[in-house]
This record gives sequence, structure tokens and C-alpha cells, in this order.
Amino acid sequence: MGSNLAQKLIADHLVDGAMTAGEEIGLTIDQTLTQDATGTLVMLELEAMKIDRVRTELSAQYVDHNLLQTDFRNPDDHRFLRSACKRFGVWYSPPGNGVSHPVHMERFGVPGKSLLGSDSHTPAAGSLAMLAMGAGGLEVALAMAGRPYYTRMPGVVGVRLTGELPHWVSAKDVILEMLRRRGVRGGLGRIMEYHGPGLASLSAMDRHVIANMGTELGATTSVFPADEAVRHFLHSQGRSGDFRELHPDPDCAYDETEEIDLSRLEPLIACPSSPGNVVPVAEVADAPIYQTMIGSSANPGLRDFAIPALMLEGRHIDPGVSFDINPTSRQVTENLMDMGLLGKLLHAGGRIHQPGCNGCIGMGQAPSTRGISLRTVPRNFPGRSGTADDRVYLCSPETATASAITGRITDPRALNMAYPPFREPEGLILNTSLLEAPPRSLEGFELEKGPNIATLPELDPLPEILEGPVLLKVGDNISTDEILPAGTEVLPYRSNIPAISQFVFRQTDPEYAGRALGFKEQGLFHFLVGGDNYGQGSSREHAALAPRYLGLRAVVAKSYARIHRENLVNFGIAPLLFARPEDYERIRQGDFLALKDSREAVGSEGPSELVNKTREESYRVYHDLTPRQTEMILQASLINVVRNEERAE
Amino acid sequence: MGSNLAQKLIADHLVDGAMTAGEEIGLTIDQTLTQDATGTLVMLELEAMKIDRVRTELSAQYVDHNLLQTDFRNPDDHRFLRSACKRFGVWYSPPGNGVSHPVHMERFGVPGKSLLGSDSHTPAAGSLAMLAMGAGGLEVALAMAGRPYYTRMPGVVGVRLTGELPHWVSAKDVILEMLRRRGVRGGLGRIMEYHGPGLASLSAMDRHVIANMGTELGATTSVFPADEAVRHFLHSQGRSGDFRELHPDPDCAYDETEEIDLSRLEPLIACPSSPGNVVPVAEVADAPIYQTMIGSSANPGLRDFAIPALMLEGRHIDPGVSFDINPTSRQVTENLMDMGLLGKLLHAGGRIHQPGCNGCIGMGQAPSTRGISLRTVPRNFPGRSGTADDRVYLCSPETATASAITGRITDPRALNMAYPPFREPEGLILNTSLLEAPPRSLEGFELEKGPNIATLPELDPLPEILEGPVLLKVGDNISTDEILPAGTEVLPYRSNIPAISQFVFRQTDPEYAGRALGFKEQGLFHFLVGGDNYGQGSSREHAALAPRYLGLRAVVAKSYARIHRENLVNFGIAPLLFARPEDYERIRQGDFLALKDSREAVGSEGPSELVNKTREESYRVYHDLTPRQTEMILQASLINVVRNEERAE
Repeated sequence: MGSNLAQKLIADHLVDGAMTAGEEIGLTIDQTLTQDATGTLVMLELEAMKIDRVRTELSAQYVDHNLLQTDFRNPDDHRFLRSACKRFGVWYSPPGNGVSHPVHMERFGVPGKSLLGSDSHTPAAGSLAMLAMGAGGLEVALAMAGRPYYTRMPGVVGVRLTGELPHWVSAKDVILEMLRRRGVRGGLGRIMEYHGPGLASLSAMDRHVIANMGTELGATTSVFPADEAVRHFLHSQGRSGDFRELHPDPDCAYDETEEIDLSRLEPLIACPSSPGNVVPVAEVADAPIYQTMIGSSANPGLRDFAIPALMLEGRHIDPGVSFDINPTSRQVTENLMDMGLLGKLLHAGGRIHQPGCNGCIGMGQAPSTRGISLRTVPRNFPGRSGTADDRVYLCSPETATASAITGRITDPRALNMAYPPFREPEGLILNTSLLEAPPRSLEGFELEKGPNIATLPELDPLPEILEGPVLLKVGDNISTDEILPAGTEVLPYRSNIPAISQFVFRQTDPEYAGRALGFKEQGLFHFLVGGDNYGQGSSREHAALAPRYLGLRAVVAKSYARIHRENLVNFGIAPLLFARPEDYERIRQGDFLALKDSREAVGSEGPSELVNKTREESYRVYHDLTPRQTEMILQASLINVVRNEERAE
Repeated sequence: MGSNLAQKLIADHLVDGAMTAGEEIGLTIDQTLTQDATGTLVMLELEAMKIDRVRTELSAQYVDHNLLQTDFRNPDDHRFLRSACKRFGVWYSPPGNGVSHPVHMERFGVPGKSLLGSDSHTPAAGSLAMLAMGAGGLEVALAMAGRPYYTRMPGVVGVRLTGELPHWVSAKDVILEMLRRRGVRGGLGRIMEYHGPGLASLSAMDRHVIANMGTELGATTSVFPADEAVRHFLHSQGRSGDFRELHPDPDCAYDETEEIDLSRLEPLIACPSSPGNVVPVAEVADAPIYQTMIGSSANPGLRDFAIPALMLEGRHIDPGVSFDINPTSRQVTENLMDMGLLGKLLHAGGRIHQPGCNGCIGMGQAPSTRGISLRTVPRNFPGRSGTADDRVYLCSPETATASAITGRITDPRALNMAYPPFREPEGLILNTSLLEAPPRSLEGFELEKGPNIATLPELDPLPEILEGPVLLKVGDNISTDEILPAGTEVLPYRSNIPAISQFVFRQTDPEYAGRALGFKEQGLFHFLVGGDNYGQGSSREHAALAPRYLGLRAVVAKSYARIHRENLVNFGIAPLLFARPEDYERIRQGDFLALKDSREAVGSEGPSELVNKTREESYRVYHDLTPRQTEMILQASLINVVRNEERAE
């Protein structure tokens, strides 16, 4: 039996483990992608690891998220990232140049390569038969340092496409159909592989739309074959030489299968407030709207703006509608201008913004109170738009534009308009001048840090005796949101660990950070005691790094959420387990604990004795660390491990 | 002796007072202009006055300031303003349609008419021989209600222009030369009237540049004659019928005179952080820059974008520079696109934003820490850009673009480039479709108020006995910033008096608002005791309206700052004066005061007795209110006075 495409891509990059679904595998990473919201910490991690230069075939840094610049922090981040690109040998895409995913696909996408990105929509590059995955910042930093990426071998879902899309139905409706069928967890632990005769009518950028929002299915990634459509795309970008044909074997098998007859799809829409909440547009038609937004990485193609422009020729939007247009990239904007299409959007009432993510991630363009917003973006989580009680719907550019014309949610077929013909022009304008290549020699480039960008704090190796107070005792199911909240007050400090650490456990115990620093000044560490499922929820790394900065060196809990446990280990915090869970009840907040011979305790596999000096008793604790993870605790963090290995080389 | 143009315009609109410099005069107002940052309160004031519809010849409401929409508040304001336009009969210019001043000039400017605007750059319309002035929101609301505008008769400065501007020097350098000569107070109490043969080479939009920044001189307004340039401008806007020739009499005189030989001007620049800090560009050349920004009401013309575009043909900006482009209006953007010029700006590296004020007023586009920003905007006050320690320079589009190319402050003459030829095309694209005319009938339109927009609180007439505690006693020179701070936390509540009142005296006494409301609930008012010059600084009306909402009905002070005293009276707070200033020392915070027969005390001219019940003593106080002002106190506020007069009609 042959291999499917996902299996081929994984086999080509496998350096560790076996390709059995659910098993851990190590993959070499050819390319990385970072954006500005996550990239600053990635660059600080490279600095802390003392990495000389990136070791991927290609790494690119995009500035597309934080473009509003209401104070010095965003522009300082941009300058820092540009300096880091020169320092480490990374391509730099400046603010206003466009959204990472489509720009990366246009400039750097190569069939068969692997791509790891610190952005959850990185899988969009699967449209070019790349193995493209999103990951946390430190994982991407490691990949930039030339190390493999570890993940679990996913199952592969074969999605066979047949037929051809009817007028007024487009790629967005294909992925909305997938979400209608499977919901937002329907892709967990899986790769979605598209195949079949229906592919022939989908351009590479149409496939980008589908692969991009595969993330909303929870999928590890999505993949499409490298066929004529991909050849055509690369040719249109002046990169024919990068094409390489890639297909699944004819006799391959899939773990699960789906089939979609494109000709039977109709315009679909995801209702508030989940991408999985999909119904036919006709079912929710006629509700009055406040806003229509087109653009974003989920509908980035020239055609996604051209069709709306042609629909609006000789028409105007409803005067009560805010029609927000976010061109994907400088190149798309130039082509739209050149073809006279951007002018049509403007003339019809569009508000044309600089290329970037913008309203998609709540950077401006928030809707009014209870005002319905129809967007071509990938997500409509509650409040993501910036308006707490928002009502955001996700749909195709066709549906969005039809609704902007009528002022109400409208199935575009109800307009009784001829479907506008659009063919991409032969000679696209290519704008490559604004992507800055890394300098030939990286000598002499310094990181340029504004006052809100702090070098990562130096972390010390584990001492022989680990002792200190239980600074906080918490219950079951403590989330990373409780450990370190998100929100507009906290987010600006993501590049500043000393500053963001002030927010650790802010809601549970406002004095936590102050007390912790008091002990730290006395040379003492501290402990946390937790119940079951400690650290559930968001994967944010800061929820480990910030308490570590404050002096946390061990948590003792009944059990841990998987990702937070990994983050704790990465930053050198020992995740200890009670041998007898009922001992949880015996320890109280404020008790003074000591883990004697702590290096040996962590280094060995058996249980250790945790002494409670306050109550003059002791508890048996153990850990389930791998040898490599043990090293991270002993050497203070994964960063130190890598740095020490670099030194040794 | 004949009249100068300013005198003619004033004489044409005079309804009260004599045209003697410094005397109060009343002027009929033909047109009003409001923008969104000030317009919401204006509309709430119209509602509170129970005005059926505006009584000007034309009123227009622009949405150009708060376009970022990071949450529901900005879009709710936009919806509210649109509904208010329908309710009161006002033209509505939606977000993305452009900056108020140039759009107003293009669509509504008529030589000889008077214009009052709730924006300090309203004088820009003096470019069309209008009498155009900026004022506070309540003044503009009164003008919309058909009432005259009262101000002091200004002196008139005749500025004679000779010669023609050399290449690389443009209108911005003319007004920078005026600022270099006279500084930021050089126009106080004056109208700047431009005349002379040099005018022939300045287009109407060039004159807009000069009149706009006349505000930075502190001038009441600036005026230009309605000559061939104005005729040409109105023709190009499809409004030839609105032209009317207007000149000063040949034998007129001026109170002061200036003369500028345009041919001898060189590129000038205002250094941080005052528009009056002007030097030749050459003097500060070579400093590396972070940003260049073109656009705003201070350089709004097609040529102000066309010259930069032509300068950039075949060139790129320095890759480290953020080149922010804020097209003035939808119409300017369309024409720039149609001429292929916007594409050149984009291709060269520009970040093109939606039409509006944007970075000019610190709505995004903030520079990096200590990063130099060169802007064509009118103001560089410290921190206005959003970055606290900013270094903003003001200059012409030519200087800004030259500097974007080199990455350093650059005199454009140093580029050794031929000055690009630009002629405005014969048939401009006119975009009028997006300005919404008021409906024919105003029946049935309701105000649409989001949760942050509160109807103005009802204010009660003065009771017979005014008694209550001295809630706060303050010293000399208390500013309106101390009474009601500005800043990002407070500004969003400008349309919500109950919410903003929580910030009254927040820095001086955080419990002031809570205590005041406690007394208010008991049916008691309260007093404030102040020293000399109470209420100096910013003219914000909220510093009177918000304490009034909390129950303040009388201030007793040694003396008042002029504008705040007027605001107190407008909102029904009696500004009482100590007959014996030394009595200030006798009253203490917390003392319980009573003004017996308070209506008679305010209604009569003589001194009254203010009883201190706590100390069992009394003080003589008096007021210097005009009969009309007395009515405002008795009837609770100017709003009530107008409302009662409306009812009587």
C-alpha cells in the first residue's frame, strides 16, 4: 500500500520516532515564520540561547499584527524585530507589507518543505504541499536554532473533492462545510488531506483559504497536492524553479475519509460566536448589519477582493454599513489598483486600510454595540473583535459584499446579479522590494531594544537544597488565565518578563508578586501547591516564565495539564506529584518546605522526601520527567540546555 | 477709507456690538461644522435644548477623529451621530470619507459666508474668503439653534505676499515663516488677512494650508480674497454657481502689517515640540528619522500627495522609515488612484491608511521611543503623537518625502532632483455620493444611543435656599485639568456625564465624587471654595458640567479664569466672589453654608450674605453677572434658558 501525501511529507522530515498515530515524532524544520505579536519573545529566546544565526533554510519575520501604534511600544517592537533579523539572519517584512501567511506563500512557499510558525494559521502553506504547522514561540526558536520539532504523529483524514463550485459559492464555503460537518474539534490530532477531481477548479490561493481555516477544525495541519494549480501559482510569482510535483500514491489509504461534492454546496455562514456554528446563509438572512469586513489570511487572494469590486461596479453599499477592506499585502493592493478594482471598492463606500491583520485580530474596526459584523476572517470567538458582546459572522467575500449592498445578511444568489467574471491577469505586478533579505555578514549588528523590551532574565541552575515557603495553595483546574491573565493591560508587556511578572496570580492573590520578590531578595525560592489538572487552558509560555522569574522552582500538585507542564519544565520549574494525593490537604499556604538533595531528587527516578519544616512532617513526592526534561530542570531551563550544548559544539 | 476683507465679512454678519477691537460682537452663523470627538456632546446639547431642527443655512457633521474602533465606543458614537443628523437635519460624512476641513471646503465652502466649527482648525475655510472660526461645543450648538456667536472684535493683520515660491518650497513654508516670525501667540486676538500679488500663484488649497495653521499663531481666523484661484477651485468642484468675488477695498488699512517675498523663502521646519520652533531645514539636516507622515488638514491638497508620489517614481524610501500616508478624503484618494499616483506611493514603501485625521491627533501611527517623526500635520505638542517623549517635526510634503528617501532630515533641494511638474487634471473625479444629505422630513427619526452615550442630565432651577457643605477647599490657580483630567481613561466618557463625573477632582481628592453624590441623594447641593484664578487652562466644558451633575451650585473664590467662569455660568453654577478676600481663610472644608433667598441674591446686583452654619458667622459675597447670565443661573443652565425661549416662541 502506498503513502498519502501527509505521510510522505512526514517521512521526508522524520528524524525521531515512529509514524504511528499518537506517538511522539521529531521533524526537521526547513523554514520558520514568526509574526510580531509572538516574534519578539522568540528573538529574545534566541538571544538567551546565544544562537549566532538561524540554521533553517529560511526564516522570515513579519510585522502584521500590532500595526495601530497608539504609543511607543508597537513601533519599538518593529524596530527591535528588524534589528533581530539582521542580527540572526532572518528575512524582515515591515509593517504595511502584508499578512504573514499569504506573503510567505507568495515569496517563500516551496512544495515538500516543512514550515513551523509561531502563529496558529501557519498551516495555510499546506496549500502548496508544505508540511506547515503552528507552535509556541520557544518551539519555533528551537527550530530556528536548527533543532527538530517534536509533536505527536497525527491521523490523516482524506477529504475527496468532486464536482465544481457553482456561481456565488467559493473556497470559504468549502471550509465552512467542513466546520459544519465536524465542528471545532473535528480535526484534533489529525491532518486534513484534500484530494480528488474537484481540486482542479481550486486555485492555490483558494486552497490557502481552506488550509488556513483548517486550524478552526483543530487540525494539526491541512495539505494539498502540488499539481498544475501550484505550478501556475509559483509561475505567477516568478518562482517556477521552486515547483516540484507532489501527490499521494494512487493506492494510499486514510485513517478517516470525507467527500464533498462542490457542485452541491451553497453559501454558508458561521454564526456568533464559534467558527463551528455553521448554517446556510439563507437561514439567517435579512438581519440588519453594522459592518462588513473583507480580507485577512482566511480570504487573501486577489479574487477575494476582485469579486467584491466587480459586484460593486455601479453600486453603493448601504449608507449605514461600515465596509472595511483589509488588503492582504502590498502586492495585492498594487495589483488591485492597477486593475482599477481598488478604486471601485473605494468609490462604492469602502474604508481601505493598510495591508495587515487589523480588525481580524481586534486591532481596530470593532463593531458597534450589538451591531452585526460579517467578516471573511477565520475566527469569531466572543469579544475577539474588540467589542465584548459582539455578533460576528464568518462568510465568503461574495456573501459579505451582498450584505454590504443591502444592509442586511444576504445570500448573494438573492441579488439577481450576474456572477462577475474574473480572471487573474497574466503578468501580475510583483512587489518584492520591501522584504529585506538578511545581510550577508551578520557581524556588527546589535539588537535595538526600546524601554519596554527586556532581555530575558538569567535563570540559575537548581541548587542543592531547594527551600522556601508555599506562597500560594490553589484548588483543582487552575487555568493559565488565572496564573497570568491576558487582556489589553497585560499584553503589551509580552517582551518584558520583569514587568509582566507583576500580573502573576493578580486575580487570585494581588500580593503574590510582591511577596515572591521579597523572598527572592533574601535568596529564597518558593513553592506552589495545586490540585488536579493544574495549568489547563491557553498554552501561553509566560504563565511559566513569569512565575519562574519571581522565584518559583517547584509546583507540587495532584496532576497537570499537558502543555503547561511542558512549559513549566522548559523554564526549569519542577512539576512534582504527590505520591499520596491526600497529602495535598496537609500542606497549608505559608508552610516552609525543603527538598533536600534536590538535584539528586530530580535526577533520579524514585520518590523523594519533601520536608514541611513548619509542621515538622514530610511527604513523598515524585516526578515523571524524561532524562532530557530532567536536564532542563537541573540546568535551569531549556534555554540553558541549548546554550550549553551550543557552547560545547 | 475703505474696509479690509475681514472687516467686510464681520460687518456682513454683525448683529450686536460695535466693530472696535476688543469689544464683544455678535455674529450670525451661516454654516456649522462638527467632528466626532466634539460632535456627540453638541448633539446631546441640541437634544437637551429641545431644538427641533438646526436653523443654519447648512450644518455638517464629520466623522474623522476616532476611526480606530478598538471597542464599541467609537462605532456607537458614529451611529449616534448619523442618527442625530437625521433627527436634527444635518449633513453626515461617515468614517472613511475624509477630514472635515478640506471636505467642507470642497463640498460646502462659499465665499462670504460665516462658519463656526467645534474644531480649532475650522479657520481653514478662510481660504475661500469665509469668516470661519473654531469654538467650544455649546457655542456651536447655539449657532446650530440659530443664535448668534459672541466673540471679541479682533484686530486685523495685513500680510502682503509678493513674488513666487521657488522650486521645493511650498505653502507650508509660508505659514512656517509666519510662525518663525511671530510665534504661537503672534496671532492672538487677531485675524490674519493675506493680500498682494504673491497670491496669484497660490491655489485655494495652498491657501487652506496657510489658513489652517493660522490657528497655531493663536489667530481668531485667517482670510484670503475670493479671486480667480477660488473661482477655479469651485469650478473644479462642480460648484461654479457658489462663486462670488470678494476683495478688500484698495484703500483699506490694517492694524498691523507683514510682508513676505515668496521668492526668498526656503524649506522650513518646526522642531520639537512647538509649531513656533521654526528653523531652516538645513540647520537640522542629517538626523536619522523613524517616520515620515504626509496628509492631514494642514496639507490636504491633491498636490500635497502628488509631489511626493512623483518624487518617489523609480525610488524607494529608506527601509528603516515608516512612511505613513493619510489621504485627506475619499475624493483625493480616488483621484490619486486614477492618476496612478497612489500606486507610486505604495510601491515606494508607503503605508496607506484610510482617509481621516489618524496619526495627526495621535490615533495610531505613534513613533518609536526617541524616534524622529517628520510630519506635514499642524501640531507637534509634546506627546500628541501618542509617544510621551516624542520628537515630532513639522514640514512640507517635499521635505518629508526627501527625508523618507534618505532616512535622515533632508532639505529637498539637496536631493539634486528635478522638481517634479504637477498640474491638477481638468476633470477631477468628484465623489459626493457618500455625504448623506439630511432627510426632507425629520419626522420619526430617533437618536440611537449606545450604552456609553447618556442623555444630558436634567438640571434643576436654583432653589430659594441654597445650602450644603463646602465639599472641597482649594488654593490659587486651580486648572481645569485638576478639576477634570484628560487622558485615555477619561476621554471615552465625553458623551456620558454621569460616568465622567466620577473623575472630578480625582487627583486632588479621590472621594470627592462619592461624597458629592451622597449629599445629592439627601437633596443637598454643595459648595467649592477657591483662591485666585480659579479654573485656568483648557476650555473644556465638562469641567463645569460634570461637577454640576454632582450637585455643585456655587463656587466662592477670590477670582476666576475667564473661560471657566463662562462655562460655570453656562451650566448654572454661581461664580461668587468674596467681598473681603480675607474671608477665604475663615471658611474650612466641611463647613455647612447657606445662601438665603438665593434667587434674590443672584438676581440682584448688590452683595449677599453667605451664612456659615458650622462657625456661626457670615461673609459678604457678590457676583458680576450680566442679566442674561443671571437667567442662566436661575433657570439652571444656558441649555434651560434656550429651551424655555424655544417653548415660548
